[in-house]
Amino acid sequence: MLEQLKAEVLEANLSLPKYRLVTFTWGNVSGIDRETGYVVIKPSGVEYGEMTAEDLVVVDLDGTVVEGDLRPSSDTPTHLALYRAFPDIGGIVHTHSPWATSWAQAGLPLPALGTTHADYFYGEIPCTRELTEREVETNYELETGRVIVETYQKNGLDPTAMPGVLVKNHAPFCWGEDAQQAVHHAVVLEEAAKMAFITYQLNPDVRPISQCLLDKHYLRKHGANAYYGQKEKRG
Amino acid sequence: MLEQLKAEVLEANLSLPKYRLVTFTWGNVSGIDRETGYVVIKPSGVEYGEMTAEDLVVVDLDGTVVEGDLRPSSDTPTHLALYRAFPDIGGIVHTHSPWATSWAQAGLPLPALGTTHADYFYGEIPCTRELTEREVETNYELETGRVIVETYQKNGLDPTAMPGVLVKNHAPFCWGEDAQQAVHHAVVLEEAAKMAFITYQLNPDVRPISQCLLDKHYLRKHGANAYYGQKEKRG
Amino acid sequence: MLEQLKAEVLEANLSLPKYRLVTFTWGNVSGIDRETGYVVIKPSGVEYGEMTAEDLVVVDLDGTVVEGDLRPSSDTPTHLALYRAFPDIGGIVHTHSPWATSWAQAGLPLPALGTTHADYFYGEIPCTRELTEREVETNYELETGRVIVETYQKNGLDPTAMPGVLVKNHAPFCWGEDAQQAVHHAVVLEEAAKMAFITYQLNPDVRPISQCLLDKHYLRKHGANAYYGQKEKRG
Amino acid sequence: MLEQLKAEVLEANLSLPKYRLVTFTWGNVSGIDRETGYVVIKPSGVEYGEMTAEDLVVVDLDGTVVEGDLRPSSDTPTHLALYRAFPDIGGIVHTHSPWATSWAQAGLPLPALGTTHADYFYGEIPCTRELTEREVETNYELETGRVIVETYQKNGLDPTAMPGVLVKNHAPFCWGEDAQQAVHHAVVLEEAAKMAFITYQLNPDVRPISQCLLDKHYLRKHGANAYYGQKEKRG
Repeated sequence: MLEQLKAEVLEANLSLPKYRLVTFTWGNVSGIDRETGYVVIKPSGVEYGEMTAEDLVVVDLDGTVVEGDLRPSSDTPTHLALYRAFPDIGGIVHTHSPWATSWAQAGLPLPALGTTHADYFYGEIPCTRELTEREVETNYELETGRVIVETYQKNGLDPTAMPGVLVKNHAPFCWGEDAQQAVHHAVVLEEAAKMAFITYQLNPDVRPISQCLLDKHYLRKHGANAYYGQKEKRG
Repeated sequence: MLEQLKAEVLEANLSLPKYRLVTFTWGNVSGIDRETGYVVIKPSGVEYGEMTAEDLVVVDLDGTVVEGDLRPSSDTPTHLALYRAFPDIGGIVHTHSPWATSWAQAGLPLPALGTTHADYFYGEIPCTRELTEREVETNYELETGRVIVETYQKNGLDPTAMPGVLVKNHAPFCWGEDAQQAVHHAVVLEEAAKMAFITYQLNPDVRPISQCLLDKHYLRKHGANAYYGQKEKRG
Repeated sequence: MLEQLKAEVLEANLSLPKYRLVTFTWGNVSGIDRETGYVVIKPSGVEYGEMTAEDLVVVDLDGTVVEGDLRPSSDTPTHLALYRAFPDIGGIVHTHSPWATSWAQAGLPLPALGTTHADYFYGEIPCTRELTEREVETNYELETGRVIVETYQKNGLDPTAMPGVLVKNHAPFCWGEDAQQAVHHAVVLEEAAKMAFITYQLNPDVRPISQCLLDKHYLRKHGANAYYGQKEKRG
Repeated sequence: MLEQLKAEVLEANLSLPKYRLVTFTWGNVSGIDRETGYVVIKPSGVEYGEMTAEDLVVVDLDGTVVEGDLRPSSDTPTHLALYRAFPDIGGIVHTHSPWATSWAQAGLPLPALGTTHADYFYGEIPCTRELTEREVETNYELETGRVIVETYQKNGLDPTAMPGVLVKNHAPFCWGEDAQQAVHHAVVLEEAAKMAFITYQLNPDVRPISQCLLDKHYLRKHGANAYYGQKEKRG
């Protein structure tokens, strides 16, 4: 079932240690088949070195396991909440990559301080509010997804143009058209988070880049008038 | 004697440079066989690249060498003090990993600022007091173990739920069920120390995470109601 | 056409990930044949792992594609503006290397704080002004080149003695006699940017090095009285 | 001539990139044969990847080339000044390793903040005064050696117990019994410099470790009563 999707999700999971985004098993990638509504996700607590396509778990959008012998990632309810709320996304990744996680621990959104950020994230990357005690104690992972969705709704954010978020006190979630692009965005977020840290240490009074520069860089890579890359590789 | 334990302790020692926790010979791992009370430990000042299982030294809980041609690590009395005081631990590691060591040099405990920390350490990781001049001059390595034990007793800490400590002006010691888990905790401590540094630089007013989030993350991985990982892999 | 130059430009592009100057495709190197005025440049958005000499694009100094099936880098107009204004340079590199990019994001020039810097850059490395809204919206990449040239003209800088610049809110451009030397300067800039960051954190009151030490280091490697290196390797 | 010494000096030079102490050719190691007074040193500006034992240059203590087709390192007069003034040292290394160089650029000595430092450097690692304009302009490299020697004399420092120094605005020099030990000390210095940076950022009010802890750690590894390592490996 879903062999192609499983192959993509496996490869995306295995790319996490390669990009130095995870330590041990601290990360998980999923992908969705929008036709069936089935989600392929990493099993919980399995080492990347020994993971195969057969270890991946298939769940439906309600979280019922459709295929697989292992338990799905404990963060599965968060992934599912995002797939339900953001119908245009095809892959999700969660990591504890150190720079982005430190911004999440600091409880601060990540402003667009340069064109590297603007090439992929169309503005300030949001940080969620803290979960309430009740949210933590009941359906914690589901509530984590819900507070992300709430953050996008309250701030009028388009998940396609803002393909990543910082969950306060926790770590980032990123997404994209598919699992591979989700990981791509996680790499960019980590790099942007590192450079924003250095930038603020150098100049605490620095301001986000102008709207016109943000527009220029984001839109030369995305949308109808994009002119970066080769035509057949755009996306 | 204790071939299985020696193999585990050797592998754990050799994993230290792999995880970038040590420079040169600045680290040592031991493991204990609780039945005999014998401890297998790294020899002093031997390079990781050339170490074999035969080089490991077996000592009893009083420090008498039971087997081995080389001298045991100069930190052996510290390891033994911890094994005597913490009967549930099976492996200990000492490193000078840079981020954790810097917190130790700063003389500061490491607060739980996020879920990465909370997944493994159930609260603020303590930093010992400074040793007195007398403690340094007489039985220094034994006194290092004693001040760790004192720190846990004074603060009512459970060594199982707080599997690592910062020794002021010196460096961290971590432990676990066995040598491998001890090293696992040392990796987590290093990562948590790095992220806490970045977090405080970003936001000096940051507060530790709430007790409910700490409970949630620590307890979903540990204890009777844990639900992270596969059942047969929990531990 | 220009096979030797293509080989050099390919090798210089491939050296970017090796020197950890780029993530994904965030960088590009070009080289010019001054006789024909033809520039060989990286294609837009192509992965380094799969790039071959045939993928490189040849353009003239007006940006007309002379050879190649792929689109040239979207930064091509910036490269061409620099080749037109700085007749002595033979290669250009653009990266988003994290330390130099952070200085650019901070909008700060990089002072010469030590001899590492002085060995290659003869004084403070400039940071351009911000582009105006009009410059961003019309011919953005060309205007990026023009603001670099303006910065050198206003400050009376010699592009040979100051082979790199920080573009505000964006990232660095470096150059040299050829593509390889341009990359060499990009590596030095990144290292100097990192060390200047650390230096200012350690001592916010630090002053640039003296003119005599700057002269000594720059001139022992460059110019008529240079005495560093072997004679046949100087350059 | 001096084949054994050349092999040692070559290996020590080649270990510099392995330990990430150098970028490009920014470093050099030498060793001395005290019987003949001949010094083997790296040639100037030669890449580590292509260096062979035959490329090494032999000079006497006055700097006259005794053997070798290439020019010796431009820093040779600094090395020779140290060999003349410090009769007990057998090898010297100069690098621009980033953390130590940043302390040198900041013009600050490196206090002993922990036992990692104390295991190898018996107290605060000194930073020289700035060279005068005259010293820079006449015999710069020789004067660099002289200001190091002056720093040790003025502060009553023993070069054996303090095997490294920061040259203000420049970078570190380290030494040891032989070329390999000199490099070993350069690695320790870099690590100590990094951790001291982090420590001061965490706690600007931190104080150097106590004299008794400094004594304990330095002397358990050095001198008549050392008990670290295996007897045949001490040194």
